[in-house]
Amino acid sequence: MLKPLIEGGTFLLNSPYGPDEVWNELPVELQQEIIDKKVKFYVVDAVKVAHETGMGNRLNTIMQTCFFLLANLFPTTDEAIGHIKNAIKKTYGKKGDEVVQKNWNAVDSALAALKEVHYPASASSTKHRHMGAQPAGGKQPPEFVKNILGEILASRGYELPVSAFPVDGTFPTATAQYEKRSIAIEIPIWDPNVCLQCGQCSLVCPHAAIRMKKFDAAVAAKAPKDFRCTDWKTKEYPGAKMCIQVAPDDCVGCGLCVQNCPGKNKEVEGRKAINMEDKIAHLDAERAGWDFFLSIPDADRAEVNADGIKGSQLLLPLFEYSGACAGCGETPYLKLVTQFYGDRMLVANATGCSSIYGGNLPTTPYTKDANGRGPAWCNSLFEDNAEFGLGIRTAVDKQNAFAREILTAKREKLGAELVDKILNNPQETEADIANQRAWVAELKAQVSACSKDACKDGCCTTAANLLAAADSLVKRSCWAFGGDGWAYDIGYGGLDHVLASGKNINILVLDTEVYSNTGGQASKSTPLGAVAKFAAGGKPTKKKDLGMMAMAYGNVFVAQIALGANPNHAIKAIRAAEAYPGSSLIIAYAHCIAHGMKDMMVGLEMQKEAVKCGYWPLYTYDPRKDQPLELVSKKPEGTIKDFVVKQNRYNILNRMNPAHFEQLIGQAQQDAEERFAFYTALAGAK
Amino acid sequence: MLKPLIEGGTFLLNSPYGPDEVWNELPVELQQEIIDKKVKFYVVDAVKVAHETGMGNRLNTIMQTCFFLLANLFPTTDEAIGHIKNAIKKTYGKKGDEVVQKNWNAVDSALAALKEVHYPASASSTKHRHMGAQPAGGKQPPEFVKNILGEILASRGYELPVSAFPVDGTFPTATAQYEKRSIAIEIPIWDPNVCLQCGQCSLVCPHAAIRMKKFDAAVAAKAPKDFRCTDWKTKEYPGAKMCIQVAPDDCVGCGLCVQNCPGKNKEVEGRKAINMEDKIAHLDAERAGWDFFLSIPDADRAEVNADGIKGSQLLLPLFEYSGACAGCGETPYLKLVTQFYGDRMLVANATGCSSIYGGNLPTTPYTKDANGRGPAWCNSLFEDNAEFGLGIRTAVDKQNAFAREILTAKREKLGAELVDKILNNPQETEADIANQRAWVAELKAQVSACSKDACKDGCCTTAANLLAAADSLVKRSCWAFGGDGWAYDIGYGGLDHVLASGKNINILVLDTEVYSNTGGQASKSTPLGAVAKFAAGGKPTKKKDLGMMAMAYGNVFVAQIALGANPNHAIKAIRAAEAYPGSSLIIAYAHCIAHGMKDMMVGLEMQKEAVKCGYWPLYTYDPRKDQPLELVSKKPEGTIKDFVVKQNRYNILNRMNPAHFEQLIGQAQQDAEERFAFYTALAGAK
Repeated sequence: MLKPLIEGGTFLLNSPYGPDEVWNELPVELQQEIIDKKVKFYVVDAVKVAHETGMGNRLNTIMQTCFFLLANLFPTTDEAIGHIKNAIKKTYGKKGDEVVQKNWNAVDSALAALKEVHYPASASSTKHRHMGAQPAGGKQPPEFVKNILGEILASRGYELPVSAFPVDGTFPTATAQYEKRSIAIEIPIWDPNVCLQCGQCSLVCPHAAIRMKKFDAAVAAKAPKDFRCTDWKTKEYPGAKMCIQVAPDDCVGCGLCVQNCPGKNKEVEGRKAINMEDKIAHLDAERAGWDFFLSIPDADRAEVNADGIKGSQLLLPLFEYSGACAGCGETPYLKLVTQFYGDRMLVANATGCSSIYGGNLPTTPYTKDANGRGPAWCNSLFEDNAEFGLGIRTAVDKQNAFAREILTAKREKLGAELVDKILNNPQETEADIANQRAWVAELKAQVSACSKDACKDGCCTTAANLLAAADSLVKRSCWAFGGDGWAYDIGYGGLDHVLASGKNINILVLDTEVYSNTGGQASKSTPLGAVAKFAAGGKPTKKKDLGMMAMAYGNVFVAQIALGANPNHAIKAIRAAEAYPGSSLIIAYAHCIAHGMKDMMVGLEMQKEAVKCGYWPLYTYDPRKDQPLELVSKKPEGTIKDFVVKQNRYNILNRMNPAHFEQLIGQAQQDAEERFAFYTALAGAK
Repeated sequence: MLKPLIEGGTFLLNSPYGPDEVWNELPVELQQEIIDKKVKFYVVDAVKVAHETGMGNRLNTIMQTCFFLLANLFPTTDEAIGHIKNAIKKTYGKKGDEVVQKNWNAVDSALAALKEVHYPASASSTKHRHMGAQPAGGKQPPEFVKNILGEILASRGYELPVSAFPVDGTFPTATAQYEKRSIAIEIPIWDPNVCLQCGQCSLVCPHAAIRMKKFDAAVAAKAPKDFRCTDWKTKEYPGAKMCIQVAPDDCVGCGLCVQNCPGKNKEVEGRKAINMEDKIAHLDAERAGWDFFLSIPDADRAEVNADGIKGSQLLLPLFEYSGACAGCGETPYLKLVTQFYGDRMLVANATGCSSIYGGNLPTTPYTKDANGRGPAWCNSLFEDNAEFGLGIRTAVDKQNAFAREILTAKREKLGAELVDKILNNPQETEADIANQRAWVAELKAQVSACSKDACKDGCCTTAANLLAAADSLVKRSCWAFGGDGWAYDIGYGGLDHVLASGKNINILVLDTEVYSNTGGQASKSTPLGAVAKFAAGGKPTKKKDLGMMAMAYGNVFVAQIALGANPNHAIKAIRAAEAYPGSSLIIAYAHCIAHGMKDMMVGLEMQKEAVKCGYWPLYTYDPRKDQPLELVSKKPEGTIKDFVVKQNRYNILNRMNPAHFEQLIGQAQQDAEERFAFYTALAGAK
């Protein structure tokens, strides 16, 4: 960190440790560098200041204030503070007086909290610097992760030779676990006595950093001393134990799980079944707990009822610890999809947030189960991702047809019974899938054993072809992921073409209603009245009704979901979409930092409000049903305005031009009512 | 024509003149060439043979038969005929026995009709060869047309220097009139005594080669002797005369006008108000008639009620004599749009048939009125034409805003009265437009007269800017034209984006339900069960409901029309779309050679049937109305099957796989009924 610092330079550290404690918390290598360079060393507890002044997680004002003071850019402190406060007024003025005043308070508090650290002449810390890949779940990182990815993580990537990289650009998955960022200040701590065992904390966690498992009592006996577990309450697993466990180094401290926890502590007002607590105090115990948790075998997929929240959270997520924003509204959807299908899924990912956190080199959050199965993932362009996904589907179908052709032609030779079992397995349940895997393994073993010497009529070529294609006999789940900029705008022409193809591909749109990753430009998904880049005066036109347009095909499965508002509907819709033997489109409401909520922690409440007021109607359109459209949302309560004023993307217009805001939001209210009436009529008519 | 022929070579001519008459009908230059090269010269009246054997306009079998016989490829005539008939069986077998038998008959008749011409030793014809640009309407072609386009027409384009061409690639319009192809064998001849004066012949003509005018009796007095006219029957023009006139050298003899004529001759069974007659017999009289017709002044646009068929056909078409197929179902729509808006329209044209016949270099069918006003037209790519049109709209809007800004700033100096008139003119009627043109001319004259010597404060720059932008003060009509391949498929992403913009652009989709120009590939517009390339077994999925998808925006004007089925609706929809101050989408049914009808002449009947049976519902969705959707079609009568079996695009499947055909068409029938019920419900609900 201090590599570029000159001798006698200034080092400002944001730290929970004060000027008297911080020295001993530093790694010895850093202590030595500070001593050698004669560094002027300061600390500030910016997190504490931000918390106390109502700034939430926003530290920039506090750190900037300290920087200005230490940099001596102005003759006096008063003058520096004056300039900072004017700049705040200019930058945040249109976000309202309250925001300005909070920032001003943060400036004053930062000034008081900034302290110089006086340090000894020799380094004496027992701590050491960790750079690069870290162990995970008690395992050391594999060689490739340690030597290549780890070097990149340690900012030494430029020193790697080209020959160190995979020749075909393919990177291994299951690597994000070795990138221990440990950035949370507070982490959720579970209280088994209050817990309702609903699984919602695990469901909504954007980072797969809080999870649920059920296990035998015998397992619990081997647990480390601070590990907490309790009896499984409901009747499906008699005598089983369960636990909720946080990954303390992977949790980013967003608080969504705690905010969303329905378990109330009856003894202590305001406490729940999980509570945000200081990480440092819990770190050792939770690390041991997490390592133990990972060692507990995963539930048998065939025994889990995955149609509800609780069951779904017994399935291993195969998307974990991504670099998405703390509190991200997109990643819980991806994680959930990997819990259901990750062990046999292929993903085409459009450019956008999900391509960044999905393949944020050097590591990737897509991971593998104990058998080494996990999603195959690739990012394509903004403009062709649906087609890319269709190409994957077509390839999978072709491989499958090829394998089936060989099985049919060689049925007698390969054994009619085995061949028939493989060819006729509907593969509709986890048990079916498990059977198919076993039978395909049996087939492959048999074909591998085929002796070349005994070969006639080119059957060795057939055997080689069958071995290459046999895995495709296990049903694949093909997905295209992307944001609204992709699905509504840049990639829509292709998305429409893929939907029209009727091919079995599942399209998941993570709808933040704005180009989030590129900085908040309006998309066709941006609703009437929302402020975005290229729609600075509030978007003058309605949000595109992508779902309605897809429904016009009549043979496309369509669902509009919001995990925070109705998790059961979200789960059922995702599972029905995947099971549908044609094209599916799932449009998922994703709250986002671009919405300007007071805190990302309230993202799921915003989802609830969006649905309740009719801003985001929930529905499922299943072409297999006599009445395909099911409008899941109830008749709207409250107003669009009540919902939107809680988000700066709208409120900014309310402050700049209240009359125009009222006009647009009035129109939005009318549009929402008409749309709901229209959907209601559609759902009633055949 | 005989340039590449060697000495003693064989020349076969398809000619209405027999072996004894043909020699004297040849140009003297051709006679000399035949004599000099000692040519073996044969004639066949392939048109007559085709007519007599029920082959319609298809001459290829007949000409091929003659070629095989003359080329002596086989030892005996019988053997040659045997091979030809086998090839026919192979090629047309799947189109049915009837088609094969017709072709076989044509082979036998061709054999009998092929005659050698014995010619004299010297050339004596009084006729001369015409190559290159021809006079039109009594006018010689302009220099550029004569020297550049005419040379290309005469197949001497390679001899032109690069410097002969326009430096910016811009070609003049109004040039197709100088390309006199004179390819019709028969042309429509008008009978004033039977005519109902409905204007339908003019409306449906794909080549603008039959037209209607009304004029004063004084004009009629100057007419050439064979020119026919009669009294204008209805009350709007008391004392006026009218006529229907064919352009004998521009008509391609498709017969659509005659087929569609509702006027019945009560005295002669089967005769109508126009009848196809031998062109040669009428050529001189009709040429004189056409030249005179063109000299008659056009109707005053402000006095014409253009909302009906009759009035619309008094407006000058500004799209004429294109190279589209005889009987084309697309071009009547384009012609009609130019009649309404051609004098102030800009067209972005997607790649496809309409870009080929629209800019079929060297000439273009887009033309100008007596004042030199006509469409500005450009072809863009398949994938970006809607965006290209939006760019044109944006440029026009910017120029207009710039001119209005200057007018507002210089109101006093330019004269408040004139400026106010220009700025406040709603330009909703032809009279408004005429006024605006006069006022803008007045403005330009005034600004041009502004003396540079008297200039202060840079007003000369302002004057130059105003002169450059002033024409944009006259309302422009911006259009995007293209086929279904563009609108439903390749250009759909952009089309959707343009519709979502809400900008005032009119999109006309010429829907042939297949990629016509590239040879009949399936598009998303191709209906269930239709056979096309990439859908050889009948398209397995439904036609995309583009109109429904556009209606989902709520602020897009949408209409589905069929000129042949309901011309009044088509006219009203086009005019309402253009008047709508936002984005408009018009989806126009266009019959096409790719449909495999028994003859292109029945194209308009096919349109009627398509609408009647519910295959092509007509509607208008006008967002300005309380109930935006008006379902114009009546409850369907008859079945989809009755309609589709008249077209080889469907019937081919019926012959190849009747069971599959029945299944798909049964589904198509059900889909059509459900769609009609859905539209009915939509039109009833708010």
